[in-house]
Amino acid sequence: MDQHLVAGNTVDLSSYVPQHFGWEQRGAVGVITLNRPERKNPLTFDSYAELRDLFRKLCYVPDVKAIVVQGAGGNFCSGGDVHEIIGPLTKMTMPDLLAFTRMTGDLVKAMRACPQPVIAAIDGVCAGAGAIIAMASDLRVGTARSKTAFLFTRVGLAGCDMGACAILPRIVGQGRASDLLYTGRSLGGEEAYSWGFLNRLVEPEQVLDTGVALATDLANGPSFGHAMTKKMLHQEWAMGVDEAIESEAQAQAICMMTQDFHRAYHAFVAKQKPVFEGD
Amino acid sequence: MDQHLVAGNTVDLSSYVPQHFGWEQRGAVGVITLNRPERKNPLTFDSYAELRDLFRKLCYVPDVKAIVVQGAGGNFCSGGDVHEIIGPLTKMTMPDLLAFTRMTGDLVKAMRACPQPVIAAIDGVCAGAGAIIAMASDLRVGTARSKTAFLFTRVGLAGCDMGACAILPRIVGQGRASDLLYTGRSLGGEEAYSWGFLNRLVEPEQVLDTGVALATDLANGPSFGHAMTKKMLHQEWAMGVDEAIESEAQAQAICMMTQDFHRAYHAFVAKQKPVFEGD
Amino acid sequence: MDQHLVAGNTVDLSSYVPQHFGWEQRGAVGVITLNRPERKNPLTFDSYAELRDLFRKLCYVPDVKAIVVQGAGGNFCSGGDVHEIIGPLTKMTMPDLLAFTRMTGDLVKAMRACPQPVIAAIDGVCAGAGAIIAMASDLRVGTARSKTAFLFTRVGLAGCDMGACAILPRIVGQGRASDLLYTGRSLGGEEAYSWGFLNRLVEPEQVLDTGVALATDLANGPSFGHAMTKKMLHQEWAMGVDEAIESEAQAQAICMMTQDFHRAYHAFVAKQKPVFEGD
Repeated sequence: MDQHLVAGNTVDLSSYVPQHFGWEQRGAVGVITLNRPERKNPLTFDSYAELRDLFRKLCYVPDVKAIVVQGAGGNFCSGGDVHEIIGPLTKMTMPDLLAFTRMTGDLVKAMRACPQPVIAAIDGVCAGAGAIIAMASDLRVGTARSKTAFLFTRVGLAGCDMGACAILPRIVGQGRASDLLYTGRSLGGEEAYSWGFLNRLVEPEQVLDTGVALATDLANGPSFGHAMTKKMLHQEWAMGVDEAIESEAQAQAICMMTQDFHRAYHAFVAKQKPVFEGD
Repeated sequence: MDQHLVAGNTVDLSSYVPQHFGWEQRGAVGVITLNRPERKNPLTFDSYAELRDLFRKLCYVPDVKAIVVQGAGGNFCSGGDVHEIIGPLTKMTMPDLLAFTRMTGDLVKAMRACPQPVIAAIDGVCAGAGAIIAMASDLRVGTARSKTAFLFTRVGLAGCDMGACAILPRIVGQGRASDLLYTGRSLGGEEAYSWGFLNRLVEPEQVLDTGVALATDLANGPSFGHAMTKKMLHQEWAMGVDEAIESEAQAQAICMMTQDFHRAYHAFVAKQKPVFEGD
Repeated sequence: MDQHLVAGNTVDLSSYVPQHFGWEQRGAVGVITLNRPERKNPLTFDSYAELRDLFRKLCYVPDVKAIVVQGAGGNFCSGGDVHEIIGPLTKMTMPDLLAFTRMTGDLVKAMRACPQPVIAAIDGVCAGAGAIIAMASDLRVGTARSKTAFLFTRVGLAGCDMGACAILPRIVGQGRASDLLYTGRSLGGEEAYSWGFLNRLVEPEQVLDTGVALATDLANGPSFGHAMTKKMLHQEWAMGVDEAIESEAQAQAICMMTQDFHRAYHAFVAKQKPVFEGD
């Protein structure tokens, strides 16, 4: 398919081996595994930077059409490591602190900017920056025993971390987001599902499979269209209604020029199931 | 009442007979019926344009104070007709495609711009552009067997159609909207009610009556005030909180100059029920 | 602690006795009691102005770290008094009306601008401006028998009062907010809890204690961080996602310079519970 692409503008991740987390391509689905299970998969300076770089790179990886993020060993992610991140931060100058908070924010920006829908598969602990990664994903699959906590307040900080005061209220409402951000309390899986934070509630042994199945469905769909959906959900965040409608008129007109739109029509007429190719 | 109005600025719809859908005035309530039940009430180029024109005209129809939209024969609307719309679109040039997506977007803009609250009465299939018309209404009454599907992705397109990426997240939350827009899955009536997409869940034989009763209550209310509520819900969509508060201070001060405000006060003092007249 | 503060920039409320409502400091928690129980605690011109002035003053009161608002006698607040407010409004000129709606709006602006999280403890009637005060709070604790009604439409006005068309949709969603604002209907406590309008649902005899306990927990937390959370929830209301993330990078970097952040880290390392001081 890359003959359609701007020359030199593609990256192949099929033999990519990250240093600080796992990466696996299952067909057109890329699976990221936070994999320090003995510590419940905390993040470090290095893993933040490497995750940011991977999500930035995904703009140029046409063979990967959806992403799943999971944690190893029954937990999603315990957030920034106390010893490897919080300790050093307490000794930094302001420019270094800002460089750090911008790096973590850049991870969320990169997750929202990549064309692939990102699905978080959440079991067990999902705390701090882990809760942010879940929040910054497009869809969330989780278990009843999952515990999502925006616990920045517990370490003496504010709830405004990596976009939480903007994004979380749009997912669960301003009042529930305020509760989570001010108190740092854990949100159990069933409550998270009833609030619309989790899109699917499944058993622990099915959480990865459910996430991968959902990602595979999306990857087999009109992925150019999905990428446009993601882009417009982002673009229209703070736009007026009329301006959003005009933006969508332009965006959807672009999508009507794709082969996938034609494939769907011809399949319908032939009473067949369309086979989308993402172009 | 039209002696109060700017001369020449009113339209009378009492003998209006649209070509591509039904129209009926029940007192101050206008009922639009999508009425090609044998095809589950699809939209065509002509019906889009005629609906857009009607909603634009409603700004100048003081006798109609609320609108109900329903479908004939147990379904709401199956969306853009595959043969009459999707087929021709696959053969169009970009300027024509954009003219089409702007026409459909203009229907939503007109629904949001008319002063009358719009109530969708939803039974059965509510798909594609039908789901958009439901979403673009002010209130939604529906049945358990209703199935609302933003299925643009199923025809190879993006979820960003007619304002969906802006409006749907504000109704059901960003995560649930993402699910519906990426997957195109059907939202059943009970789930739609629990998410706040439907405002009332009723039996199929009551869905129109419930919609009309709600519309009649609004029509009998302070309709100048309702129109201001609708305008401000639109205006404040992407405004800061402080700016919204100042805008509402101005808007409500205007409403305090209406006769309906005085009528309510005098009725209260006289221990009577106020009779509002919309001026 | 005030030696840390800009000289001359602090106010002591420990002996404050408002004229039109009750005020009590319970440790670092300030409790406001609307206290005309024989009329279900209506607001008057004077009480609006005095509440606005108190919330404005709270920016300069470092000893008060969280606020609870309640009503006396089993009701929260019945809104603007019909005889003392609505009657006079029907006789005013436009400049005076606008001065009034700006005064009421300024109360909400002041509630959102003070650094203390505000918790509404809601029992019984919570109507009109009372519903607005509840909505403008950060968190809401309420009872099953509480009845919240944005009933401006019942007095012939619009739902756009004191920011309701901007704030309420963000708490309960655009469709549910439209229902409440157009119809003026009462929202019962259980429904309010299931919608996320109420954060906690408790028995009437526990509603104040629950509110004070929650406020005390917040007051004992990193109150500088909480104030930043509140500020950023406000700032990011109508910002794009990327701009919000950069704003949070700056805000959180500031919080990382606080002693509370260091206290939390050192307590964690020492396996102790941190004692926050708000600086």
